[in-house]
Amino acid sequence: MVPHGNLHEGLAADPAQEVEETLLSRPGLRIGRIVSAGQASPPGFWYDQAEDEFVLLVAGEAVLDIEGESTSRRLRPGDWVHLPARRRHRVAWTQAEPPTLWFVIHHAP
Amino acid sequence: MVPHGNLHEGLAADPAQEVEETLLSRPGLRIGRIVSAGQASPPGFWYDQAEDEFVLLVAGEAVLDIEGESTSRRLRPGDWVHLPARRRHRVAWTQAEPPTLWFVIHHAP
Repeated sequence: MVPHGNLHEGLAADPAQEVEETLLSRPGLRIGRIVSAGQASPPGFWYDQAEDEFVLLVAGEAVLDIEGESTSRRLRPGDWVHLPARRRHRVAWTQAEPPTLWFVIHHAP
Repeated sequence: MVPHGNLHEGLAADPAQEVEETLLSRPGLRIGRIVSAGQASPPGFWYDQAEDEFVLLVAGEAVLDIEGESTSRRLRPGDWVHLPARRRHRVAWTQAEPPTLWFVIHHAP
């Protein structure tokens, strides 16, 4: 039986916190999904990651701020962004209901 | 400007052939999307790949056969499968209308 699943199943949104699950992990590669229910990065907080991240918004809606860009990005289903390592970014807003579902690929730069 | 796009935009289905596009390519990693419009693997043909492949069905529907499994897998939106290198598989059927959209990650095993 090969590893398999459905992105929309078995991961409940939590109004108290983002919920993240790793689907596959290999050296230099981690594939996962995240459910956001209105969560956003704290004011002034920026992600500053050692790995590249490919983000795909599967369901819901979100607003992403990327350092050096003058305009926030509004992400809708099917939108993807590739965030190179050390490119600082933050999640300004996520849709709570229905919740926002992300598919993410972290990989070595 | 970071690389970005929308999976549902700018990739037209073609009844004559599958259409594949690479979204991101790095050593040991290739992320892409495929639009199938009813195409399937030829009778008796099996993919036998040197790399692992993580497949996510984004839209449409498909039937996937994996060597060693007694039952075909019917894939619907959100379904994902991780196919290890050398695990032979074939696409038995894809929905033509609306077309079937795949998101694929090829990576070194």
